[in-house]
Amino acid sequence: MLTLFHHPMSSSSRFVRLILNEYDVATNLIEEHEWARRREFLVLNPAGSVPVLLAEREVPLCGAYVIYEYLDETRGGLRRDQRFFPENPLERAEVRRLTEWFLTKLESEVTRHIVRERIYKREIPLAQGGGAPDSQTLRNARANIRPHMKYLEWLSASRDWLAGNSISYADLAAAASLSVLDFMGEIDWKSFPASRDWYMRIKSRPSFRPLLNDRIRGIAPSTHYADLDF
Amino acid sequence: MLTLFHHPMSSSSRFVRLILNEYDVATNLIEEHEWARRREFLVLNPAGSVPVLLAEREVPLCGAYVIYEYLDETRGGLRRDQRFFPENPLERAEVRRLTEWFLTKLESEVTRHIVRERIYKREIPLAQGGGAPDSQTLRNARANIRPHMKYLEWLSASRDWLAGNSISYADLAAAASLSVLDFMGEIDWKSFPASRDWYMRIKSRPSFRPLLNDRIRGIAPSTHYADLDF
Repeated sequence: MLTLFHHPMSSSSRFVRLILNEYDVATNLIEEHEWARRREFLVLNPAGSVPVLLAEREVPLCGAYVIYEYLDETRGGLRRDQRFFPENPLERAEVRRLTEWFLTKLESEVTRHIVRERIYKREIPLAQGGGAPDSQTLRNARANIRPHMKYLEWLSASRDWLAGNSISYADLAAAASLSVLDFMGEIDWKSFPASRDWYMRIKSRPSFRPLLNDRIRGIAPSTHYADLDF
Repeated sequence: MLTLFHHPMSSSSRFVRLILNEYDVATNLIEEHEWARRREFLVLNPAGSVPVLLAEREVPLCGAYVIYEYLDETRGGLRRDQRFFPENPLERAEVRRLTEWFLTKLESEVTRHIVRERIYKREIPLAQGGGAPDSQTLRNARANIRPHMKYLEWLSASRDWLAGNSISYADLAAAASLSVLDFMGEIDWKSFPASRDWYMRIKSRPSFRPLLNDRIRGIAPSTHYADLDF
């Protein structure tokens, strides 16, 4: 049994959970609060961030990017034509580009800020920067959602899956990130019908179900969050 | 001949140049100014950032992470025991973790800010945020150098190379990032003797030589920047 240190509102953690579910890897989940900077956790990952996967022989694997390449190398090869990486190196490059786009660029321009303001700051002590959300930060982050959704809409409308003809890690990464924003009701799906169709397809996969049951203390998910047909 | 869009003061661009030099791949270098948001460049990389490598069939590969995995898949396999990735997946995970540490964490906590304040802002028009460096931003970024150097010192002192027994992409990534800070004279090498020894070993490789000849308009490199024994 592997162990994953995660947070339910961390896009990268959700991405790793989706992969573990897709590969049917039994995992023990431990919720970690990065802001507490727990000493035992810092020993596992000096960067102090989730996700961290304790892999074979309890070796800590730190960060979504390290973990997904590792899981692909050790588990993905067995899946053959159902692998989340295409065979061709140039097509794999496109999968990696989009995975990074959603886990890093969308994250640093939008998701991280909204999650911090609306969710983490309820738990962080006042002296460490917790408290009420800062409305200017929220406004700035929200203004960045639309260009990202337009890009997602273009990808969804022009390709079967985000990185090409087959489902890939890029779809899992994008869906993981979008699901965090969707939990908080931050996405105007009506304006992005192709993205909505793509997201419905991903959301219907059995691997997604545990994520739809996530609950956070003190905040209700958006009304359509767990609906497969929204 | 491949084409690399880069900037001499971008750590990720330098990392890719080192790999291309190590693999002896003839490359045409084009200096790109991200802040100009050139339309033709945005078509290649909607994220607007360097490095971008035009690979086989002129397909654009965007970002250091996409590029180094691609170069390893297409070039690295031929190098056998001189490869920059170890054979074991857990050891490869450590290489990827440290590569990300230097290209992303050090970059976002230190390097990006100092380069922007001291170098980019000389070129950026005033109306777009150019001008004199902001001393508070510089102070904050500089305060973050020391913990990173202490971590590098621990790695250099306890291992032959940063990620283990052999030179790896982690060493190239770290040296690329450090070389940008060293160009600007931001590193107090005297306090970090093991790091200094490690850096001297990397800096002496022929792949490093072109980087030591880089010059930037209006700013002289630190006096020891190009010395192999400093």
